[in-house]
Amino acid sequence: MADQSPTPIRCKAAVCRANGAPLVIEEIVVDPPKAYEIRIKIICTSLCHTDLTFWRVKEDFLIPPLFPRILGHEAYGVVESVGEHVEEFVVGDTVVPTFLGQCDTCSSCASAGNNMCSSVPFAVGPGMRRDGTTRFRDAQGEPLHDFLAVSSFSQYTVVDVNQVVKVHPDVPPKLACLLSCGAGTGVGAAWRLAKVEPGSSVVIFGLGAVGLAVAQGAKMCGATKIVGVDLNPEKQELGKMFGVTDFVNPSELGESSVIEVITKMTDGGADYCFECIGVAAVMIDAFRSAKQGKGKTVILGIEKDGKPICLPSIEFLFGKCVMGSLFGGIKPKTDIPILAEKCMNKELELEKLITHEVALHDINTAFDLLVQGKSLRCIIWMDKLVV
Amino acid sequence: MADQSPTPIRCKAAVCRANGAPLVIEEIVVDPPKAYEIRIKIICTSLCHTDLTFWRVKEDFLIPPLFPRILGHEAYGVVESVGEHVEEFVVGDTVVPTFLGQCDTCSSCASAGNNMCSSVPFAVGPGMRRDGTTRFRDAQGEPLHDFLAVSSFSQYTVVDVNQVVKVHPDVPPKLACLLSCGAGTGVGAAWRLAKVEPGSSVVIFGLGAVGLAVAQGAKMCGATKIVGVDLNPEKQELGKMFGVTDFVNPSELGESSVIEVITKMTDGGADYCFECIGVAAVMIDAFRSAKQGKGKTVILGIEKDGKPICLPSIEFLFGKCVMGSLFGGIKPKTDIPILAEKCMNKELELEKLITHEVALHDINTAFDLLVQGKSLRCIIWMDKLVV
Ligand SMILES: [Zn+2]
Ligand SMILES: [Zn+2]
Ligand SMILES: [Zn+2]
Ligand SMILES: [Zn+2]
Repeated sequence: MADQSPTPIRCKAAVCRANGAPLVIEEIVVDPPKAYEIRIKIICTSLCHTDLTFWRVKEDFLIPPLFPRILGHEAYGVVESVGEHVEEFVVGDTVVPTFLGQCDTCSSCASAGNNMCSSVPFAVGPGMRRDGTTRFRDAQGEPLHDFLAVSSFSQYTVVDVNQVVKVHPDVPPKLACLLSCGAGTGVGAAWRLAKVEPGSSVVIFGLGAVGLAVAQGAKMCGATKIVGVDLNPEKQELGKMFGVTDFVNPSELGESSVIEVITKMTDGGADYCFECIGVAAVMIDAFRSAKQGKGKTVILGIEKDGKPICLPSIEFLFGKCVMGSLFGGIKPKTDIPILAEKCMNKELELEKLITHEVALHDINTAFDLLVQGKSLRCIIWMDKLVV
Repeated sequence: MADQSPTPIRCKAAVCRANGAPLVIEEIVVDPPKAYEIRIKIICTSLCHTDLTFWRVKEDFLIPPLFPRILGHEAYGVVESVGEHVEEFVVGDTVVPTFLGQCDTCSSCASAGNNMCSSVPFAVGPGMRRDGTTRFRDAQGEPLHDFLAVSSFSQYTVVDVNQVVKVHPDVPPKLACLLSCGAGTGVGAAWRLAKVEPGSSVVIFGLGAVGLAVAQGAKMCGATKIVGVDLNPEKQELGKMFGVTDFVNPSELGESSVIEVITKMTDGGADYCFECIGVAAVMIDAFRSAKQGKGKTVILGIEKDGKPICLPSIEFLFGKCVMGSLFGGIKPKTDIPILAEKCMNKELELEKLITHEVALHDINTAFDLLVQGKSLRCIIWMDKLVV
């Protein structure tokens, strides 16, 4: 009987060879999955701000530049082959890869509210998390760095079994893709991290894809007042489609501060404030806009300049709380299937986050649109020449 | 039938006439309770750091000095008379006054986890909270300011009905007294605010009365590792009596930092860190010592110099949370009776917080002991000449 072990695959990938440079569509080699790994045929992927951050990264950033690299971490695909000791998945399973893992056996996975699996811990640095090596080589045989151990800007990728979530084949690929990072983060932040309660007031600073997903999550949890704060006036109409009930444009408040306006709108302060921009000053505005007694401030943005958040300690004593998490606090294998189901039965409406779709060879268009703030999510179809 | 309305009472009180000056035992007049007010005969009171703060207060502090004033806010007493519309209490009820109110009808009181009653809101400023006036006059008829609308350093005081909690007459006066502020705050912070889970690890920065009460609260909640951090080596043995399982003296760590030592002791970071000192740098140490994924940092101290806490926003993204509250998040009327019961059945052991007892005319000794760090709690008996 012939050896049926997976062999290397030659396929197309969008390779980033230098920071800020257009990606190059190259033919690459994807090695077979090792033990506890799965090789996935990527059907579609989408572009998230974290990809932009690591694409533009300069020498002085907290994480040094590292190229050539295959970016991408929001995706949907089909299991092509599995390595040794993989029992949870079979070839043909429809799945999403995720940058956070879930082993379901470590103490973190066992603990409600902790999504930082400690058996194969999250790492920003490159390399598969069990052995630190890459599964990608270019046409010359030179290694290509992976990204978040996902690297979905390739027609095939290899992911750790902890970082793969099965989704029902009926779930539309585009929706499942969104849940694997940005939309999952936003909805999760309202649902799992902040635990928004029915009847409560929510303020969202920044109505990008994550902020709009927070709005959907807050609506799903029964929030009755959902205030969007954004400098872009077009976000007022857009926000309504995601459940935003009130809109504040900080540039149109005259003498009043955002904090004053929100405190008035929410009858003394919001129950939940979400910062989805990544600006320390806005994080402080969010904290100050939260209600005394029980106001929660949730940090979802990564501070653009690495600035700290400085808060008067006395304000904590009046019953305030600041929290954050990766992936909105969701446990990928537990929660993505639940969210996918909520998308199917329309409890969650995330389709409108998809503003653009392109084929793999037009991936640089997806970058341009996001850099220019013209897109929320652009789906990149890995197999199509034209969309 | 003769008019049975309460009349003014002449009694003794310890009056603070200038910041930092010894209190003066004076004969004062306590007016009858107005509508929604209760006049209490104080049996015993104890001295809390917040009294010291407002006694020493200088012109440049956030809250300006205000004298002459009757301080004191941890106490136990008996209802002497009630004003109009008071239905919850009758003469002879054994009670503790509390600086936080609870009306049980406003939206804050109705909300689990919110102890900032909004119908008669907490205020630092002087005056009864419904009308802003005082019920105290000195022998010359000059008004004396109250403190937190409690002013327990008087043999009689008047308190709003929202700020009085009935306790079972079997509860020893000294224990009930402790629960009305410091011990209630510490136990509450572990129990109601942080919601310490069984089997978890807890680190307490500062083993004063509040910190030791946190240890008891954490033990009551089932924490298995309770680390005390204090510069005073005597706190090691003391801590054990309150449930502290491990002790760290930051001055005896050589090359290692507190954060490194705690991270090691708690296998990667503590589930809960409590700051009970009031120093911004320690608050940051506490935050950094908390576990990634789910670590909670609880701020109980008031920063001595009004400095802000500056935290790198990216660390929040790794699943960290900072929270604070007044009174450890407990709702006075709901939770003090529960805690009193736990004291009675020895689930909570708070007696050892009482290191000294004095009579009213020795109240300045209580101040000296606390200033010098020689006492945890000193009970002041209002009716006795010698203890
Ligand atoms: Zn992402
Ligand atoms: Zn795990
Ligand atoms: Zn106190
Ligand atoms: Zn209330």
